[in-house]
Amino acid sequence: MKAAIIGVTGYGGGELIRILTDHPVFRIHSVHSSREGMPVTEEYPHLYTIFEDSLEKIDSDKIAAEADIVFLATPSGVSGRLAEAFSGKPIKVIDLSGDLRLNDPGEYESWYGHKAAGSNVLEKAVYGLSEWNRENIRKAEILSNPGCYPTATLLGLGPLADNGLLEPAGIIVDAKSGLSGAGKSLSKATSFTEMNENLKIYKVNEHQHIPEIQQQLARWDKHIRPITFSTHLIPVSRGIMATIYVQLKEEMDTESLVDLYKETYAGHHFVRIRPAGKYPAIKEVCGSNFCDIGMHADRRTGRLTIVSVIDNLMKGAAGQAVQNANLMFGLEENAGLNYVPVYP
Amino acid sequence: MKAAIIGVTGYGGGELIRILTDHPVFRIHSVHSSREGMPVTEEYPHLYTIFEDSLEKIDSDKIAAEADIVFLATPSGVSGRLAEAFSGKPIKVIDLSGDLRLNDPGEYESWYGHKAAGSNVLEKAVYGLSEWNRENIRKAEILSNPGCYPTATLLGLGPLADNGLLEPAGIIVDAKSGLSGAGKSLSKATSFTEMNENLKIYKVNEHQHIPEIQQQLARWDKHIRPITFSTHLIPVSRGIMATIYVQLKEEMDTESLVDLYKETYAGHHFVRIRPAGKYPAIKEVCGSNFCDIGMHADRRTGRLTIVSVIDNLMKGAAGQAVQNANLMFGLEENAGLNYVPVYP
Amino acid sequence: MKAAIIGVTGYGGGELIRILTDHPVFRIHSVHSSREGMPVTEEYPHLYTIFEDSLEKIDSDKIAAEADIVFLATPSGVSGRLAEAFSGKPIKVIDLSGDLRLNDPGEYESWYGHKAAGSNVLEKAVYGLSEWNRENIRKAEILSNPGCYPTATLLGLGPLADNGLLEPAGIIVDAKSGLSGAGKSLSKATSFTEMNENLKIYKVNEHQHIPEIQQQLARWDKHIRPITFSTHLIPVSRGIMATIYVQLKEEMDTESLVDLYKETYAGHHFVRIRPAGKYPAIKEVCGSNFCDIGMHADRRTGRLTIVSVIDNLMKGAAGQAVQNANLMFGLEENAGLNYVPVYP
Amino acid sequence: MKAAIIGVTGYGGGELIRILTDHPVFRIHSVHSSREGMPVTEEYPHLYTIFEDSLEKIDSDKIAAEADIVFLATPSGVSGRLAEAFSGKPIKVIDLSGDLRLNDPGEYESWYGHKAAGSNVLEKAVYGLSEWNRENIRKAEILSNPGCYPTATLLGLGPLADNGLLEPAGIIVDAKSGLSGAGKSLSKATSFTEMNENLKIYKVNEHQHIPEIQQQLARWDKHIRPITFSTHLIPVSRGIMATIYVQLKEEMDTESLVDLYKETYAGHHFVRIRPAGKYPAIKEVCGSNFCDIGMHADRRTGRLTIVSVIDNLMKGAAGQAVQNANLMFGLEENAGLNYVPVYP
Repeated sequence: MKAAIIGVTGYGGGELIRILTDHPVFRIHSVHSSREGMPVTEEYPHLYTIFEDSLEKIDSDKIAAEADIVFLATPSGVSGRLAEAFSGKPIKVIDLSGDLRLNDPGEYESWYGHKAAGSNVLEKAVYGLSEWNRENIRKAEILSNPGCYPTATLLGLGPLADNGLLEPAGIIVDAKSGLSGAGKSLSKATSFTEMNENLKIYKVNEHQHIPEIQQQLARWDKHIRPITFSTHLIPVSRGIMATIYVQLKEEMDTESLVDLYKETYAGHHFVRIRPAGKYPAIKEVCGSNFCDIGMHADRRTGRLTIVSVIDNLMKGAAGQAVQNANLMFGLEENAGLNYVPVYP
Repeated sequence: MKAAIIGVTGYGGGELIRILTDHPVFRIHSVHSSREGMPVTEEYPHLYTIFEDSLEKIDSDKIAAEADIVFLATPSGVSGRLAEAFSGKPIKVIDLSGDLRLNDPGEYESWYGHKAAGSNVLEKAVYGLSEWNRENIRKAEILSNPGCYPTATLLGLGPLADNGLLEPAGIIVDAKSGLSGAGKSLSKATSFTEMNENLKIYKVNEHQHIPEIQQQLARWDKHIRPITFSTHLIPVSRGIMATIYVQLKEEMDTESLVDLYKETYAGHHFVRIRPAGKYPAIKEVCGSNFCDIGMHADRRTGRLTIVSVIDNLMKGAAGQAVQNANLMFGLEENAGLNYVPVYP
Repeated sequence: MKAAIIGVTGYGGGELIRILTDHPVFRIHSVHSSREGMPVTEEYPHLYTIFEDSLEKIDSDKIAAEADIVFLATPSGVSGRLAEAFSGKPIKVIDLSGDLRLNDPGEYESWYGHKAAGSNVLEKAVYGLSEWNRENIRKAEILSNPGCYPTATLLGLGPLADNGLLEPAGIIVDAKSGLSGAGKSLSKATSFTEMNENLKIYKVNEHQHIPEIQQQLARWDKHIRPITFSTHLIPVSRGIMATIYVQLKEEMDTESLVDLYKETYAGHHFVRIRPAGKYPAIKEVCGSNFCDIGMHADRRTGRLTIVSVIDNLMKGAAGQAVQNANLMFGLEENAGLNYVPVYP
Repeated sequence: MKAAIIGVTGYGGGELIRILTDHPVFRIHSVHSSREGMPVTEEYPHLYTIFEDSLEKIDSDKIAAEADIVFLATPSGVSGRLAEAFSGKPIKVIDLSGDLRLNDPGEYESWYGHKAAGSNVLEKAVYGLSEWNRENIRKAEILSNPGCYPTATLLGLGPLADNGLLEPAGIIVDAKSGLSGAGKSLSKATSFTEMNENLKIYKVNEHQHIPEIQQQLARWDKHIRPITFSTHLIPVSRGIMATIYVQLKEEMDTESLVDLYKETYAGHHFVRIRPAGKYPAIKEVCGSNFCDIGMHADRRTGRLTIVSVIDNLMKGAAGQAVQNANLMFGLEENAGLNYVPVYP
């Protein structure tokens, strides 16, 4: 199967190259960018001798004619336009940006601050939270790959929300992300000297991933009320931890909850539930497509603390995108994704 | 004024030396440890040419006879015994451990796992949250210096709790600490390779600072219910951020809240309130005795997010201890503590 | 092919598990340690669901009877004894420690400070610098895997030394290593708070890898004189850079030198020579088995600067060990080792 | 004494503010930048409540009329022009850039790539390596503050060069710097994700600090030949280590060398010589104006290894600038500079 990638100079595109150069079925057919002509190794010297193609221009007709699938690793705003261009052409599309994630264009525009993609692509786009939407993903022509924060948060909340166990008003998510999640464009906020030995909170209650999380929560349980959602930057390159605080409608102990999560995710290769008393650390999934989850029900407060960790470039971006591509082409979910976490 | 320090080989003791070698009134008279005879520079080569005393044995009679104040930078369990030994002797005592913080010995024993200090010292010990207990601190003979997490959390909650504005059951604290907070004793959990590029949650709902926070909250507002409190280790040396989520009894907007905080802390040198829309980062207080606080009231959820940051070795330990010593000796609160944050 | 690993709780052993769980030919038959009975996941939670075997006791007869190859990821001193125990048994042995690297037992004892392995195993042990000793490695029964510093240094010096181009007395190696190279045993020097935001020089002219480097240099060019060799710890988990300064017998320009290196390493999958004007960074090989080399000939001084980087746990330990195992069993050198560097 | 600072938004300027807000004699009169009108706290929130002045425009007549000294913390190219503007006016000038460091305009232009400052200011400018040029500094009107790499390197070489002990052709400096040394302007090379977990060599044999080092070495010993000088970026915010390799004309043991260094720097507050067998780490000078030096003479090779560390923003920039200002105004060298290293 031939894959094209548009937007390879960002971290998501780079990670797609890492995965697809070693995939048993997909082969990188071509890479595209506005920086036409540049060898990929100029941006990514670590790919020297491994993948030395040059960037080609973005020609949707040519790409659709030659490749079986195209990954859009382009920024929000650009992706939507490209999805429209590919729509109806004989090629499957996976978009890693936020452009196709919100059903409601008005909501998109109020959180993202620019125009939404056309309603025809929004309607066709399937939300690619692999573990929860497998059947639809298998049939998708245009797939919207979930955000990094939503992936960690939703995998952590799914078993409770889907079973109607959550008190609707009490969901608080305190999320922490490594800097690769902030992307590759330069800013003072992401310079080494600024972020090293630092911890910052940002976009308090204003992150554009909030409506994406709420949309999926509402699919599971329409009574759920707006969530409180905070995002922090931590001085690591890769990794997201979502620490999630919820109130259950009825008290459950940690062991029963762990059992519920294990049952829910049985048969799902990439979600690992830790036993009661153990919590995952972000380094334990680094470089892999796993989402590890631990939890603790507190008798003192009646509240439940859930800890969900992913590698933001893998399960939070390129890894989940390939997992979805596998499903879309009838392959095993984990084909080419059996990465052991790189530890330490 | 002559100061003795017991337990200088830990990070709290080292920071006391950094402060007191440059203090306008206090002078380090002697340093004490079970590692008698060792020059301090052997443990701390950065003090070479600055402070080259050797460690002396711990003789409470001799120390009380020679010094005006003794700082106990000793571990929990040891400090309590030393406080008992100094009790009644003509010397002021500041304990940096948790041994004198909880009024109720039974509660101490259930959270700390070993025997509490004698009730005579527990009764005399004044809780040294400087901004909130100034008058009692001025008269204290034995002072119990607050924990690092409690300092950040309580300074962030005080203006609301003291004014009875908090919904009693909705307090959630998601706290993050640098590794110096974990102390200097070796463990796998605090090795470089283990914590670098990592983020860990630990002691979920079980941290011994929980009862200390609740005790002070109850002094402000006896209706407050048990809090949810999570602690994370982040890969930095210094710094604590407490991200605090609360529900107010009546809705207030961010500007009014900022005003309330500014009024409450007017005249308090070390608490800096950020304007609406700005949040402090831990690096902005590094090496200084400041506690910086920002906040955001969210219309979508009716919930308030408060961000409070300190340097755990300064305002969270040695800095606040010297601030308290200043008060105990009638000095200006900020004498010898005008450290500009070391940035970057 | 069945592989046994002894000493899996160190970083070298952990990395062997990462590689061998995904190797096309070798399969982990059993893991052994003095901590018999413990599941590997207790030490390494990142292996949860991937590799959940428990540690077995070290019984050389049983291991030799059941497995085809045994990797000794044990400390210096232990490895030598184990190599003796396996010697003569029907099993191939790869030792990752320094115990079998020096031909001269007296030299071993003076640099390592304890007794050398028996001369029978020392004589049989083949030095596994894969790119330079391929034929002998193919026939080896006992293989001594090179040290991390020697691998980076020798691959950087080989093309010059082997062609007799080096001024014998002018070799200076300034080496820098991440902390995983210091191993997993706890020490103040390797604690997070101690090494974070730090850079340390250690074992100046006293590192036990010096005689190993000199032994191999002498094989190439017996005139080479003692080298100056400094080792530094840098605050990263993985990665070694050797910055090497040499004087050539006759002046050559950078381009000619790059050509020489490219020719020398043609057909060697894991050595990548950068073009003139480009230098490798350690992150560009992280998680992979590559050794990347760049160089610059300085007209002002007549001196040559060579930069050689590896991932110390891969090409500097477990990766090269598996590369050697591949050769010993007639496989392609890079079987199971096509890791793309994890970037960023 | 009134001090003006031009160029406060860079790290050097920020560090000058940290020092001068707490200096016993100098007071910040005004701060200037092309970003006129902006409060300093917008760029540096850590200065909130400490220093809240706004940036004023750069008017050399007004500054000269009002202030006693002006610090130029401006980029190379800008500083030279400003120095010309202040030349002859009744104000002392300290330039932190490289613009006034090289006597020979032609050499400046070939290493810096743009036009040199006028020869009148170049001739008046005194090189501010405080420990070696004290008498001239006391009388200086225009002072050229040394570069960060030259400071660490020259303080490490001075005692040998000044005594004619060095073999002229054998000097190799392997220098490592934290990222604040790369300045505050944004570049891919200095982004967090790019430099975290990384180590890079850059400007191999091409760094513009090379001629500055050679110029001073030639003042001590005109026979010294071109040096080999490599610069590396390490993932820390502050700190430089120069690992220096030299050959002595006659063999000396480590103890004798330590004695020579101690004698040379007796009476110099900021240079600390470590005893034989001990080496400084960069964290041991962080936040302070110290330069710590250790050394080892190797019998095996006859070569000497010298390790010299500084905080690049203090002794390598703002700290040494204030040290020089102290000398220029007849104050104690260490007035306002008694910072204890911030450890850990």
